Amino acid sequence: MPNAIDLLKERLYTVLDLNSAAGVLSWDQHTYMPKGGLEARVRQMTTLESMSHEVFSASATGELLARAEEAVAKLDPESDEARMVRVIRREYNQAVKLPAALVEEKSRITGKAMDAWMACKPANDFAGFRPHLEAIFSICRREAEALGYAEQPYDALLGRYEPGMLTSKLKAVFDEVKQDLVPLCKSIFERNSQVDDACLYGDFDPQAQWDLGISVLEAMGYNFDNGRQDQSPHPFTTEFGVGDVRVTTRIHRDDFKAGLFGTMHEGGHALYEQNVSQLYDRTYLAGGTSLGIHESQSRLWENLVGRSPQFCQWLFPRVRKLFPAQFGQMDDTAFYRAINRVKPSLIRIEADEVTYSLHVFLRFELELELLSGELKVADLPEAWNAKMQSYLGIKPASDKEGCLQDMHWSDATVGYFPTYALGNLYGVQIWNTAHKRLPQLKQQLAQGDLTPLREWLSDQVYTHGRKYDAPELVQRITGEPLKAKYFVEYLREKYTPVYGL
Amino acid sequence: MPNAIDLLKERLYTVLDLNSAAGVLSWDQHTYMPKGGLEARVRQMTTLESMSHEVFSASATGELLARAEEAVAKLDPESDEARMVRVIRREYNQAVKLPAALVEEKSRITGKAMDAWMACKPANDFAGFRPHLEAIFSICRREAEALGYAEQPYDALLGRYEPGMLTSKLKAVFDEVKQDLVPLCKSIFERNSQVDDACLYGDFDPQAQWDLGISVLEAMGYNFDNGRQDQSPHPFTTEFGVGDVRVTTRIHRDDFKAGLFGTMHEGGHALYEQNVSQLYDRTYLAGGTSLGIHESQSRLWENLVGRSPQFCQWLFPRVRKLFPAQFGQMDDTAFYRAINRVKPSLIRIEADEVTYSLHVFLRFELELELLSGELKVADLPEAWNAKMQSYLGIKPASDKEGCLQDMHWSDATVGYFPTYALGNLYGVQIWNTAHKRLPQLKQQLAQGDLTPLREWLSDQVYTHGRKYDAPELVQRITGEPLKAKYFVEYLREKYTPVYGL
Repeated sequence: MPNAIDLLKERLYTVLDLNSAAGVLSWDQHTYMPKGGLEARVRQMTTLESMSHEVFSASATGELLARAEEAVAKLDPESDEARMVRVIRREYNQAVKLPAALVEEKSRITGKAMDAWMACKPANDFAGFRPHLEAIFSICRREAEALGYAEQPYDALLGRYEPGMLTSKLKAVFDEVKQDLVPLCKSIFERNSQVDDACLYGDFDPQAQWDLGISVLEAMGYNFDNGRQDQSPHPFTTEFGVGDVRVTTRIHRDDFKAGLFGTMHEGGHALYEQNVSQLYDRTYLAGGTSLGIHESQSRLWENLVGRSPQFCQWLFPRVRKLFPAQFGQMDDTAFYRAINRVKPSLIRIEADEVTYSLHVFLRFELELELLSGELKVADLPEAWNAKMQSYLGIKPASDKEGCLQDMHWSDATVGYFPTYALGNLYGVQIWNTAHKRLPQLKQQLAQGDLTPLREWLSDQVYTHGRKYDAPELVQRITGEPLKAKYFVEYLREKYTPVYGL
Repeated sequence: MPNAIDLLKERLYTVLDLNSAAGVLSWDQHTYMPKGGLEARVRQMTTLESMSHEVFSASATGELLARAEEAVAKLDPESDEARMVRVIRREYNQAVKLPAALVEEKSRITGKAMDAWMACKPANDFAGFRPHLEAIFSICRREAEALGYAEQPYDALLGRYEPGMLTSKLKAVFDEVKQDLVPLCKSIFERNSQVDDACLYGDFDPQAQWDLGISVLEAMGYNFDNGRQDQSPHPFTTEFGVGDVRVTTRIHRDDFKAGLFGTMHEGGHALYEQNVSQLYDRTYLAGGTSLGIHESQSRLWENLVGRSPQFCQWLFPRVRKLFPAQFGQMDDTAFYRAINRVKPSLIRIEADEVTYSLHVFLRFELELELLSGELKVADLPEAWNAKMQSYLGIKPASDKEGCLQDMHWSDATVGYFPTYALGNLYGVQIWNTAHKRLPQLKQQLAQGDLTPLREWLSDQVYTHGRKYDAPELVQRITGEPLKAKYFVEYLREKYTPVYGL
């Protein structure tokens, strides 16, 4: 007779298979779907998602879950089964706590907000978007109340992306980073002329860029038998099982960085998913444990590996061979400096490794105040611009370069932004430990031998899937909780020679 | 308050969306999926299919269907609603008549048979495959009994692919065709040396073949906004809504015909699906009405258009421009003769326009006898070979070129084969009517102006989707029921000058 845990797992196969199927439909939508397919695709996705939600949040799931919890109470709490049941409980509670009426209302609000944003951004019309943003934060407040929280409403929203993390902890860490990062940026900006990256803009053959990306993915150990790379306007990574983890990239003919570093970024996400234990396939332990840890891996491979002086020694000769007209007269040091140019920018997604986190802090702080009501939506543009001036020393000329710049708020993904900066922090803290455990790491990077690093990360991070929440995982790997200091130390050490600080 | 018909339609949205989602997963599997994705893909497909079956065959569907039938009884029986409810009733009865145990047993049998066929074909081991084929025909007999039939068990199996068609009618028509076709083939085979097609075999640049295929699809009026072409080992057409109808093709470097005519064949299937009335999207009236009518359109575009002397006048200059080394010294008449070479072959899928139907008749006759028990599976190889000898004058040297040649029987798709030959017959009968209604058709073909033909076919066939069963549709279009004579008349008229008969 099957035990309670197996019965629960079996019931959830349907949910996981429906989610994977929706993933395939989404991948197709963003890569190959002809434009006429959109209307039917939206219907198909809606049907799959609502069936998945229906099966998952049904009382039958709750009953099996309760029985499975009784069963795992007799097991080692560190066992895969016990951990898996804990993850399912967390997701189940989230799924059943939200009343259907609230979910539907949110969907209506975000639908309208998205339409409004599409019209208001090009028209630079914040007044037109304002009522939608008010509705967004209002429904997010109700959502937080329905979900429940430990200390403050934002915890509920943050916890969906970063289980186990508290707003208060995050704020303390971010504030500490900010205290050092703002002056660091300022002194770099003052030495703006020290670094020239003109070589990265010009005309770069797309096929050669593609080939370079493939060879870098191969060097990273991305498994092409269990995945593939395609092109899409917004690069992403997706998985439909441990054996099928796909990445996309975009190639800009006139901007060399976009393709290469976008590929390494998604490659980092993909290495995580590809190296989750096979035992977790088709269970709730498959996948990354949090968006912060996921982003730590994408940014580790993109920045800590990809933009390191050591890896440049391996990378640059390959770049020069593929693009002799552009790089034939350069050496790897000049290339390294160019790809590490720091400059203040208005748009987060275009930001470099140093300024990136400041964009996120800004957004996080504004989200917190908007959610609590401390900041009125009407006052957002002014507050946004003031923070941009204070953190980065620049001010948007218009709201479309400011608080209207991206669609994320229209989608009500409040609580999601901080995971981007968390990724930087987690990434460097894990990176430092990697150097201790792999004393030859710098030489290996210089030789393009990324296998020891990938294997160490697999063993420490990837194989565990969702078994450990981010705070626990980081403690296990680095022997410490998340600490602010490592990130700024890393930046200071790296950028002091680049900018002659 | 929504009426009974709307309630039924709404319930079935889920089924249709799940089926479309499964279609996307299948398309992906056959085009881009990395090999590591197979295991998860099989799980996902199984889940989608079983959920679709569960919702469709539930008693709740039956109750809504009964209420919808009461509602449409008050409407014009020719109305879309009445016709749609009739189609749903037919599918519902088929879905609920099969006991779950029988479906599961069939799935087990075909799974094992497929494995056995994969091993037995290369080993030429009919004895090893025989027990599996016996089990296949045994379960097909039980399936036919469960489904019920008008005159004989084969009707039940045939009706799944060709609703409204009876075995007795099919047999009479096929026998009539055969009576003329066998001697026609014989006299062509005797003049084998009249036609040389060596020019079609050599080295043909794959990109140039691809470009030719795209330009022919464009000439046919395939809408690339609502579809796309990709490559796959076995070409197919699939649709996920009227706005997303995709084709695949295969390019053989050494065989010019495979890519071009495969593309036109799938393009014909796709024109059908793309031009179904928008009103039928996401209903049971979307899609082709039967496999026979579907095949009539693929073969009409591939053979009646693609291999016509008129279209060759438009096509050949384009072919010659893309492949000057191969065709530079030829004229369109020689090209026309080459692409219409007739020769006896052992393998159905390699057969030409004239001999193709004989392969199908052979299979249909054997299926009938195997299902009735008149022919024992043990005696199949001998019966197969005798018919090959009698119809095509050749005999397989081994069973792997004979009754083990393809996997279709392993999949228990009994009743499906005759639709291939029906396609030829329906196609020519509709083609003759097209020439009457479009007196300029030959000139239009010669100019590559395929719009009038496509529009006429859309109006006569495509737009109606599944509203009319094949026999009714053919009667409406041609003013006659299916007749055997047109097909052989067409062949005789076409091949008399080619072979100097």
